[in-house]
Amino acid sequence: MAHTMDTRIDHLGEATLRSPIQSNRFINDDQRVLYNVFPEELLKSIEDGNAPPAFERAGAREQIYFDPKSCRAAIVSCGGLCPGINNVIRSLVMQLYYVYGVKEILGIRYGYKGLNKKWNIEPVSLTPEIVKGIHTLGGSFLSSSRGSQPIDSIVDRLEELKVNILFTIGGDGTLRGGHQISQEILKRGLKISVLGIPKTIDNDISYLAKSFGFETAFSAAVQSIESAHAEAAGAPNGIGLVKLMGRHSGFIAANAALAFKEVNFVLIPEVDFDLEGDRGLFKVLQQRLDQKSHAVIVVAEGAGQKYFQEEGNKDPSGNVKLGDIGIYLKNRIKDYFKSIQYEINLKYIDPSYIIRSVRANPNDTVFCGVLAQNAVHAAMAGKTNMVIGVWNNIFVHVPIELVTSKRKQINPHGSLWQGVLESTGQPGLINE
Amino acid sequence: MAHTMDTRIDHLGEATLRSPIQSNRFINDDQRVLYNVFPEELLKSIEDGNAPPAFERAGAREQIYFDPKSCRAAIVSCGGLCPGINNVIRSLVMQLYYVYGVKEILGIRYGYKGLNKKWNIEPVSLTPEIVKGIHTLGGSFLSSSRGSQPIDSIVDRLEELKVNILFTIGGDGTLRGGHQISQEILKRGLKISVLGIPKTIDNDISYLAKSFGFETAFSAAVQSIESAHAEAAGAPNGIGLVKLMGRHSGFIAANAALAFKEVNFVLIPEVDFDLEGDRGLFKVLQQRLDQKSHAVIVVAEGAGQKYFQEEGNKDPSGNVKLGDIGIYLKNRIKDYFKSIQYEINLKYIDPSYIIRSVRANPNDTVFCGVLAQNAVHAAMAGKTNMVIGVWNNIFVHVPIELVTSKRKQINPHGSLWQGVLESTGQPGLINE
Amino acid sequence: MAHTMDTRIDHLGEATLRSPIQSNRFINDDQRVLYNVFPEELLKSIEDGNAPPAFERAGAREQIYFDPKSCRAAIVSCGGLCPGINNVIRSLVMQLYYVYGVKEILGIRYGYKGLNKKWNIEPVSLTPEIVKGIHTLGGSFLSSSRGSQPIDSIVDRLEELKVNILFTIGGDGTLRGGHQISQEILKRGLKISVLGIPKTIDNDISYLAKSFGFETAFSAAVQSIESAHAEAAGAPNGIGLVKLMGRHSGFIAANAALAFKEVNFVLIPEVDFDLEGDRGLFKVLQQRLDQKSHAVIVVAEGAGQKYFQEEGNKDPSGNVKLGDIGIYLKNRIKDYFKSIQYEINLKYIDPSYIIRSVRANPNDTVFCGVLAQNAVHAAMAGKTNMVIGVWNNIFVHVPIELVTSKRKQINPHGSLWQGVLESTGQPGLINE
Amino acid sequence: MAHTMDTRIDHLGEATLRSPIQSNRFINDDQRVLYNVFPEELLKSIEDGNAPPAFERAGAREQIYFDPKSCRAAIVSCGGLCPGINNVIRSLVMQLYYVYGVKEILGIRYGYKGLNKKWNIEPVSLTPEIVKGIHTLGGSFLSSSRGSQPIDSIVDRLEELKVNILFTIGGDGTLRGGHQISQEILKRGLKISVLGIPKTIDNDISYLAKSFGFETAFSAAVQSIESAHAEAAGAPNGIGLVKLMGRHSGFIAANAALAFKEVNFVLIPEVDFDLEGDRGLFKVLQQRLDQKSHAVIVVAEGAGQKYFQEEGNKDPSGNVKLGDIGIYLKNRIKDYFKSIQYEINLKYIDPSYIIRSVRANPNDTVFCGVLAQNAVHAAMAGKTNMVIGVWNNIFVHVPIELVTSKRKQINPHGSLWQGVLESTGQPGLINE
Repeated sequence: MAHTMDTRIDHLGEATLRSPIQSNRFINDDQRVLYNVFPEELLKSIEDGNAPPAFERAGAREQIYFDPKSCRAAIVSCGGLCPGINNVIRSLVMQLYYVYGVKEILGIRYGYKGLNKKWNIEPVSLTPEIVKGIHTLGGSFLSSSRGSQPIDSIVDRLEELKVNILFTIGGDGTLRGGHQISQEILKRGLKISVLGIPKTIDNDISYLAKSFGFETAFSAAVQSIESAHAEAAGAPNGIGLVKLMGRHSGFIAANAALAFKEVNFVLIPEVDFDLEGDRGLFKVLQQRLDQKSHAVIVVAEGAGQKYFQEEGNKDPSGNVKLGDIGIYLKNRIKDYFKSIQYEINLKYIDPSYIIRSVRANPNDTVFCGVLAQNAVHAAMAGKTNMVIGVWNNIFVHVPIELVTSKRKQINPHGSLWQGVLESTGQPGLINE
Repeated sequence: MAHTMDTRIDHLGEATLRSPIQSNRFINDDQRVLYNVFPEELLKSIEDGNAPPAFERAGAREQIYFDPKSCRAAIVSCGGLCPGINNVIRSLVMQLYYVYGVKEILGIRYGYKGLNKKWNIEPVSLTPEIVKGIHTLGGSFLSSSRGSQPIDSIVDRLEELKVNILFTIGGDGTLRGGHQISQEILKRGLKISVLGIPKTIDNDISYLAKSFGFETAFSAAVQSIESAHAEAAGAPNGIGLVKLMGRHSGFIAANAALAFKEVNFVLIPEVDFDLEGDRGLFKVLQQRLDQKSHAVIVVAEGAGQKYFQEEGNKDPSGNVKLGDIGIYLKNRIKDYFKSIQYEINLKYIDPSYIIRSVRANPNDTVFCGVLAQNAVHAAMAGKTNMVIGVWNNIFVHVPIELVTSKRKQINPHGSLWQGVLESTGQPGLINE
Repeated sequence: MAHTMDTRIDHLGEATLRSPIQSNRFINDDQRVLYNVFPEELLKSIEDGNAPPAFERAGAREQIYFDPKSCRAAIVSCGGLCPGINNVIRSLVMQLYYVYGVKEILGIRYGYKGLNKKWNIEPVSLTPEIVKGIHTLGGSFLSSSRGSQPIDSIVDRLEELKVNILFTIGGDGTLRGGHQISQEILKRGLKISVLGIPKTIDNDISYLAKSFGFETAFSAAVQSIESAHAEAAGAPNGIGLVKLMGRHSGFIAANAALAFKEVNFVLIPEVDFDLEGDRGLFKVLQQRLDQKSHAVIVVAEGAGQKYFQEEGNKDPSGNVKLGDIGIYLKNRIKDYFKSIQYEINLKYIDPSYIIRSVRANPNDTVFCGVLAQNAVHAAMAGKTNMVIGVWNNIFVHVPIELVTSKRKQINPHGSLWQGVLESTGQPGLINE
Repeated sequence: MAHTMDTRIDHLGEATLRSPIQSNRFINDDQRVLYNVFPEELLKSIEDGNAPPAFERAGAREQIYFDPKSCRAAIVSCGGLCPGINNVIRSLVMQLYYVYGVKEILGIRYGYKGLNKKWNIEPVSLTPEIVKGIHTLGGSFLSSSRGSQPIDSIVDRLEELKVNILFTIGGDGTLRGGHQISQEILKRGLKISVLGIPKTIDNDISYLAKSFGFETAFSAAVQSIESAHAEAAGAPNGIGLVKLMGRHSGFIAANAALAFKEVNFVLIPEVDFDLEGDRGLFKVLQQRLDQKSHAVIVVAEGAGQKYFQEEGNKDPSGNVKLGDIGIYLKNRIKDYFKSIQYEINLKYIDPSYIIRSVRANPNDTVFCGVLAQNAVHAAMAGKTNMVIGVWNNIFVHVPIELVTSKRKQINPHGSLWQGVLESTGQPGLINE
């Protein structure tokens, strides 16, 4: 149940230093943001005698824990690329340097690998001069790597480097690593804050209304869909098939389809579909071609996995390897229409690397900047084992354990999916 | 007080027809979205014995009021341009036509003028074929006009045209007009629904978390700021001065500054500033030039109005005419530095028309589409005298009277402005 | 030898009607544009007693052949997509309609298929109202198809449709078809002009300084290379591999590499390369990784064909089917580094469909417009069996037979390739 | 007469060192590119007994003059911003450093000011690391200034800084300065090469087929015209009026109009027009509004100067100050329609600073790169007092004196202007 979720934030100790910020806008630790916005759920929790579930509000604290003069921060980015990583790095540095006066900031190269001494990767020093232009480029200025490293080695290295604050930019696996690091730090009695900046291009992390880079990603996907549409309309019975990111959640596919109005079918992991049968994809696609002579299909990479054998394979970050539904659909659709001697012209587009490596758009730039500002506020106040997120449009603190406890998915009975059905005109179910 | 706000929605009558939508996702009229997300405010209202203030949730209803077969809708857009108008028009038509089967849709040309018979402007018929590509262009496919028309004439014309639903896309004045039209309709005992789609590029309408086109607008403004920065950096003591929209609220200026990281001073209507004095703009600007040899200033058009005589002039839409703070600042800054024989190179950029006429970006395209979908759901269910909005990320119904009751502004003590101060490094107060 | 090339243009007959254009800028048929701009070649041809080789200059003629009132034009687009097709269609219609007063313009759908009655594809009527917005979209408004149709059927259909001018937008195969059509027309004694607008995204048609859409295409490719670079720099020993169009000529790859400065190796059909060996690709790539830890490779689709068996397969347009050098390189590079236990992270991007379906950029828009204007001038003057091209920055008439007589390629000893070598720093030869 | 033009290039002395470039593609000094491409002009010059006028071909020479090990280069950019300046700077540095091995490269800040010791501006050292990302930004990395400095002081400073090659990026005035500098160098018997990279956003320098940044500039202007069109179409009798750059030549206005198809009137310096009279602008504009209810006008800043008193004012670079035709037209048009009680809605857009400060587009990036490569080749070979240009699509050497001898303008009787008239449909003459 949502109302038993634990939103308490770990602290390294009492914050007793005066913040260098001149402001009358400080936030205090008692300020909360409600989890529920539907009154019935909320009233129920109150009737049950519980405080309504709520997150700690983010923002500058009047008292801080670390002395900026002697504080040393480190920043690491892990996992695959996502628009906005460089914006986050840049804003962390600017906020630490100019707002708090923290001048020692290390950039850890190649993800957690860079914190395992055995790989022999030296950190770089990050200054405003060095990072000031990095947000105009996609990718990660610090480079990245996949997979975990021994927690012991990481904490050894943090000690050795005399790091007080570690900012980890990464997804599920990275955040779980961050949690383990903070547990080990606690065990050793160290005073190192671990602050997560959740990165997931799929927008599938729970308890976070949105993740940075997601909007840029689905916006960049629009161009590929536009191309798929031009190709489809440009040949007899043209079919444009676009595979988009979304391992377990179809948010990119759904939003990209709403952002370009010529998509006819959206296939996502959350909604089962069949290929065969009277109401299966082949038949509804054929009907569309009969009527309009062209069609556009958008498929999330995690859709239709029932068509693959369970392989049990995992990639270095521990993610299950998916079957390639894009190639599979391409071949199956071609075979089907060939079998009924129906001429089609199918063009398949897989734009993943192009999408995830673009620079953040202006709205994501704003978002990354404020995320980083609040991450620094939280870290300087001595909070740890948490991520910065946004909920009901307000920036909040969320325990790492909570955000990694389950995955966010599209509700097939909710309004987003209803909007997609209305926009595409596709059947509610594409099933035998 | 927020908790006494009236969020009840007017209905034309009981909705008794079965919706043509095949779905198990219908929303019922009892579903609510809380206004407050801070527990203390909420608990206070409960302790006071009131139901917590909340909005009616938007979405498809199982029972509808109008029979799609005999229903005739009309769409009108009023006031200045804003990105996304064509997206809204397009999505209204698509939703009416394909989802509900309403085939008679009139496009009213040139705003409310087109509903006053004396101007002799014939409506156009809107079909999917006609509107399918209009969202790729900025502007308004239906064209627009400023100013009000006699309410009587408008309702006469609606009767004459046998309109059942009027969708009005417009700002403050337009929505007030919509309210008056719905009152006159009530008086005459007509069965015409008036549904507002709030349009404000300044994002300054209350009880709406965001307005369509706003994100596109501040994103488009980034290019001008980038140019201002290039010009400033390209000459000795270069100053780039950009005037952005924002008559009473500085949201565009603030967000554009957060979206491009080289802005040094943001001036908005909500925060007073002086030019003269030891901590006035001239002096802090001079300090910046002494240190860095260039500076970028972003000013919202409604800032610094204390420097103009009250003229009492109003434009045809009833808005107070503002003094031109951009030109004024340009001249005053030049004069100041001339007076102290300090060479500067000031370049002034006023990109307003370029910003407001661009096409909606992908995120606004999604937003406009869902707004329109929900507006049609509400209208078909017989609701009237309301606007579609979004609150806590959920689409809601809001009475027109409520949204026009006050203006939304940046809180100078809130986190948005705090973020701007941290990002620009400008002093909290620029005052004598 | 260039100076024996035949640049004479076929005419349907004497142009005796007064052009409706009010102008004092008419071009006459004697005006010529020199083929050679190097004096030694030119002087040699003069010494040999020949007139220097030169093209007929394009432009409005004072006397025209067809009476606009009774003239009927048809437009067809064939083969694969290319940016600018819609611009050409639009400008042909506008020029015919407004400048000459030709009101009957047929759009032939689905390429030459639409001119073979057996496929039962009705032409559409093209008016300014219909085409005015089509240039804002990629693709082809008229749709297209590959492959040839019987010349007899095409000319039958042209007679049946009472077409006087046929504008064919297409590549090599299409233009050869156009030549055959005009021969058959001649044989039948018909008065139908066949005007070609050469389309080749690869920019590989001879006697044409550039082809429409080429600049847009290589510009669009830059984004993919930028992504490849971000991916390469974002992982340990990252390699970004991009396959671009260019079946027989590497112009897109070469120009895209000059337009984005982080390309390290460009592989094109005109320059042989080896994978193995001390100076082969594997080794020079490894050296690059040793030094810089990342690399970007751009390969034209027609490069390295020696690595494939001759299959003799041809696609419906008669083009030889190439082996997929992109996939091949990806696999071979991975295998090589695996064999020497050298960790790499290779990301492969194939953006072809995304590139060829974008809308024309402003410069190509200008170019397409002027091409179309001049094509209409030529057709109205009764010229036939020719294409419109540009040579030494001047628009000219070129016989179809001449442009299809050989292919244009990058000169490995010329300045374009020299510039690529200097920009990338790659070895002049990548060979065993 | 063109055929008496002097295209001889000055040399500092004989080039006797072996180029470090490994190549079999060297160009020798005898290679020429013909000036004329029309045979009659060419044959005439031959009959007159003259060699046909031709430029020296650019490119790498086998023998060079400066020893890369001891050579010191300097780069300066002068005058107003233009897209591509940073590309040129970057490519000069890369070419000097990597291709020739010249490691000492000075960046002169703030134009010629930075070469006058009295202003106390220290040069910066330019390395590949420093310049590698600058082309992603508009503006000038070295900053700029207007106006001339005493030639003596400049040459003194060059001697003091031990500069061997000076690359000057700038327009008319800057190039004239470069010529004077090279004359003074000659007088003093110094061995300093002065190489000009002609910069003119207006594309108005003679003997150069095109100038860098011009294409980017007119392409960027399209967005403003698109906005003007949206504004015009969005209000009753809307008029969009856009002022574009073009002091003496209307190339930007003409090309931008050809690149966006909704322009109705283009006004340029080369073609006189009247406001009053039966065929003046007011009347033809009124006719357009009567028919279509909206209109778009593009005016080059140098058009219609007859409406201003000769002021004799000049700016610091010595350019005549023009009257502001944009503001003037705006006011006169408003007054005219007010005087006849004809409601219009005029929106005026002046996007100059936004256009000139954008980054170079891909095609200009290619062009800037090759310009810089060839400029370095020429300088290393000991050539001086010349600029790099392109003629008949081939890169050439042109004496500074020749390029500054007259201005390039649109020929009102030529094909570019004819194309504009056909595209806009405007009358050939807008005159009383």
